[in-house]
Amino acid sequence: MSLTRTEGGVERLSRFARRLLREWRRRGWPLRGEAALVAVSGGADSAALLLALAELSGTGALGVCLKAAHLDHGLRGERAREDARWVEGLARTLGLECVVGHAKVSELASARRDNLEQAARRARYEFLAAAAREAGARSVLVAHTLDDQAETVLLRLVRGSGAEGLAGMAAERVLDGPRAVDAGGGEVLLRRPLLAWARRADTEGYCRARGVEPRTDEMNEDEHFARVRVRRRLLPLLETFNPRAPEALARAASLLREDSEALDALAAALLEEARAGAEEAGEKGIAGDAWPLRVGVLAAASPAVRRRSLRLWLARARGDLRRLSHAHLVGVERLTEGTRGGRVAELPGGGRVERRRGLLHFRPGASGRGEDET
Amino acid sequence: MSLTRTEGGVERLSRFARRLLREWRRRGWPLRGEAALVAVSGGADSAALLLALAELSGTGALGVCLKAAHLDHGLRGERAREDARWVEGLARTLGLECVVGHAKVSELASARRDNLEQAARRARYEFLAAAAREAGARSVLVAHTLDDQAETVLLRLVRGSGAEGLAGMAAERVLDGPRAVDAGGGEVLLRRPLLAWARRADTEGYCRARGVEPRTDEMNEDEHFARVRVRRRLLPLLETFNPRAPEALARAASLLREDSEALDALAAALLEEARAGAEEAGEKGIAGDAWPLRVGVLAAASPAVRRRSLRLWLARARGDLRRLSHAHLVGVERLTEGTRGGRVAELPGGGRVERRRGLLHFRPGASGRGEDET
Repeated sequence: MSLTRTEGGVERLSRFARRLLREWRRRGWPLRGEAALVAVSGGADSAALLLALAELSGTGALGVCLKAAHLDHGLRGERAREDARWVEGLARTLGLECVVGHAKVSELASARRDNLEQAARRARYEFLAAAAREAGARSVLVAHTLDDQAETVLLRLVRGSGAEGLAGMAAERVLDGPRAVDAGGGEVLLRRPLLAWARRADTEGYCRARGVEPRTDEMNEDEHFARVRVRRRLLPLLETFNPRAPEALARAASLLREDSEALDALAAALLEEARAGAEEAGEKGIAGDAWPLRVGVLAAASPAVRRRSLRLWLARARGDLRRLSHAHLVGVERLTEGTRGGRVAELPGGGRVERRRGLLHFRPGASGRGEDET
Repeated sequence: MSLTRTEGGVERLSRFARRLLREWRRRGWPLRGEAALVAVSGGADSAALLLALAELSGTGALGVCLKAAHLDHGLRGERAREDARWVEGLARTLGLECVVGHAKVSELASARRDNLEQAARRARYEFLAAAAREAGARSVLVAHTLDDQAETVLLRLVRGSGAEGLAGMAAERVLDGPRAVDAGGGEVLLRRPLLAWARRADTEGYCRARGVEPRTDEMNEDEHFARVRVRRRLLPLLETFNPRAPEALARAASLLREDSEALDALAAALLEEARAGAEEAGEKGIAGDAWPLRVGVLAAASPAVRRRSLRLWLARARGDLRRLSHAHLVGVERLTEGTRGGRVAELPGGGRVERRRGLLHFRPGASGRGEDET
């Protein structure tokens, strides 16, 4: 796509901003008329994203109403307060509003039995979703780069993911579903405008060129975190095989995402087809999503689609996929083989799947849904 | 699956042979009545495979008629002749026939403009296919291990493969298609009985336990080869993240293979659906596989299936996929977007794809099929 004069001042844009604009158009995201919240930690990636969006707004190339947002996770004391002030200062310089939130992630982690990383992530996205609704923003923009994507793919690879995991992060997904009308209605979208193209060196270089010195986070240097070791040891080794290994990983992720989306659509259709009627189910009080499935329909499908169907069925029947490992899923899948009924696959948390008279039945654990949380 | 006394002496089998037998059954490969050729280089993996198959035959657990096969690639002089004698000796000890072939891989590489690795691989599989036909063997058994699979996945990952490449090696594939009746008829299958489970340490340990000292190949220590660097540097680093990283990679490969197979089947069906009739094609002399495709049908499909359809179409129309990069395929795919005709995507070797009146047309290069070989 060539840039034209009619878009206003595009020729004078920095290369970084031009690439951001190209990606924005390629994704078909609206060029004007929307409000967007930009998540800014203060690191080089998010500072570059905010700066470049402001640059595009300034020239009129992008007519999106921008607002910065920053969460103090309550983990880094005075240093975190400095980060927040720094982000507010940057936003002010750019003539943008900034909303700062405060969380107590350690307490949330204990309360929810999450690890610190999970709890921080959850707190951050909850804050961003709420702030977006408050601001009437349709989207939250986060600054994950191509390097982050490559790191995510590698982390998932060493942990044994299939295509779903190796697809990495999505460039766009729903952050928060429809709520009550008084909470603002509509979906809030999470968008990652840097994911497909920006290298970490690009964001650092652009900040430098704009005379901005981003904040640093010592956690990014702490090799106790697997992600830091991936960044500092594994990716450099992969680059000795192919200098463009991060791009190769990101491209693989994007291809596998397309594959997963196609197979997920087929799996949802297969699930509908396999769903037995109430009469065949022969029992009352089945929860809406726990209908029995016809083994014959599942057995005729390809393994890739069948596996995804069963996972979708279990996710709906159990309420989530917590603690459900690949081995559990293989156990359920085996029930669809052969002609013998009366077999059972146990699930974590006491639930199980039974094959009986050509149907798979889901049986919740003793305490029903949510049992798997214990 | 539990092992029973009726299979004959299974209790006395080594753990390695028992695992091999379990995999054999899991794949549904025939337990008796077939002849199989075992490819033996003399390294620990292939020596272990031959030893374990002989062990299973000896107890009657497996009733397959075995023959060893070894190719001297003509690359290692006296050392190679020693390897061949060693393999013949091992086979003799086990009471098995051994067929030894000789190739001049350097000359083949120059003649075919392959690199040495490709030429060696090609010569080996041609020899094995011919030897299998000669021996009336239905299958050729090769000793690739789970470690080889993990290495293959990593090599393809750093080179930017999608699911097709990341699916790694198949546990079973056709090695050689039907031939003239006098050449023996039927398909020869390539099978990899160690691929899903055997670690290199397992094959080494089993050889040791059987009192056999395998041959070593100094190429396995030469870090000029990317595969050797993957084995000696990359995999050990991945194991610091997850001690079972090789297993994780092999499992990812197996899941991605299922995904690819499901999507390939859909792509073949889409291609049939998209194929325009001779009348619409509006021209004579279209080669059988180069029929124009209806853009509308392709555009309605998911990107993952559309991409595979187009690749399949181009493979058939051009005769192969040589030099066709991902970027070329993306160029062809773009032709299916929007409503505008009169567009062209150039292919390597002078061929091209044109969009005209709702159809995609393949146009071979100046010298037609095979042009891409120049």
